[in-house]
Amino acid sequence: MINTINLPMLPKPIKNFTDVFAKLPSLGPRQATRLAFYIAKLGKEKIKEIATAITQLNDLSTCARCFRAHSDEGLAGQGKLCSICSDPTRSKHLVAIVEKETDLISLENTKKFNGWYLVVGELSKLGEFNPEQKLRLNSLKSFAKKELGGKIKEIILAINPTTYGDLSAATLKKELAEYAEKITRLGRGIPTGGEIEFADEDTLSNALERRF
Amino acid sequence: MINTINLPMLPKPIKNFTDVFAKLPSLGPRQATRLAFYIAKLGKEKIKEIATAITQLNDLSTCARCFRAHSDEGLAGQGKLCSICSDPTRSKHLVAIVEKETDLISLENTKKFNGWYLVVGELSKLGEFNPEQKLRLNSLKSFAKKELGGKIKEIILAINPTTYGDLSAATLKKELAEYAEKITRLGRGIPTGGEIEFADEDTLSNALERRF
Repeated sequence: MINTINLPMLPKPIKNFTDVFAKLPSLGPRQATRLAFYIAKLGKEKIKEIATAITQLNDLSTCARCFRAHSDEGLAGQGKLCSICSDPTRSKHLVAIVEKETDLISLENTKKFNGWYLVVGELSKLGEFNPEQKLRLNSLKSFAKKELGGKIKEIILAINPTTYGDLSAATLKKELAEYAEKITRLGRGIPTGGEIEFADEDTLSNALERRF
Repeated sequence: MINTINLPMLPKPIKNFTDVFAKLPSLGPRQATRLAFYIAKLGKEKIKEIATAITQLNDLSTCARCFRAHSDEGLAGQGKLCSICSDPTRSKHLVAIVEKETDLISLENTKKFNGWYLVVGELSKLGEFNPEQKLRLNSLKSFAKKELGGKIKEIILAINPTTYGDLSAATLKKELAEYAEKITRLGRGIPTGGEIEFADEDTLSNALERRF
């Protein structure tokens, strides 16, 4: 396959778009080039709409407790809490650590979780935390100390059940051991609605081990 | 799988971004939501750079003959020809019809094609041409009439070798029959560097049929 980047044939605005978008997740250089030509054909109005959709991402606030990007009304601005963290009906003694907002949203959609979250950011495959992640974990620790008398009742490590996820979970567990009475992970087994016949060996082994 | 569109949980700027980007090719709603959160975290400077990369797509011109989007220097502006169409060393008697610019670029990269192109746009699966496509085909016909005495020596239908591509090619062939001495398509067979063992049956049947 020929790489479409660095081609003299590529018009400059297309090349520039490709360079910028190919660095984003879920788009390779080929897809980015295709997308550029596609958008170019949509015309001035539509191009403005797309650019505005991007610029508006500046309007998001970051929650001071869970660090998720939000635009909850009346709660914008740094240092303010989001609608989840400021909800008095939710338990402060149960926290789920997620890597990213989309994981949080999936959990929230179950309507089965009544604690709060910590969005820690995508974890390195080397099992180390970057400065921003350290800051977020420290914020969790000091919340436990100041507001919960030292220990959170339960921390759920809602990290993907992959090899790297297991590694990250182990590191997190060590890091947070003294700040929680219990540290758990999400259950593993055959996905609901799935078929045993099509489950891979690892999934099936886990399902056997965790039978109930 | 839960669809992330229409979730009350989604912050407004993220939802708006998702709505706009999920309509573009190669991005589903889930990927768009992820991308939105990712871009939001990049910060003001980077967000501006990305928005600008989109806005700059307005600067592209459309060639009056081949209809490709280009930014060839000194050749901008409507009614002007692009660098390929205005190149006197290229044959006017050979034209390749492609669906999109990225196909044109791949052909151009072979450095084996010395004719010109017609970018006809992505063809409908119903085998019909939209008004813009009719306009482009008419432009080709009138070029053949005015500049080449009625018939182009050869039209190559450089359309994907898929079921729909075959259908489109048949429709194009009928449409253009009286304007060309010869209408051809790209060769079919085992991709160079590929292995017979891994070629699918259709490819292999075509390769057998077209052996040389």
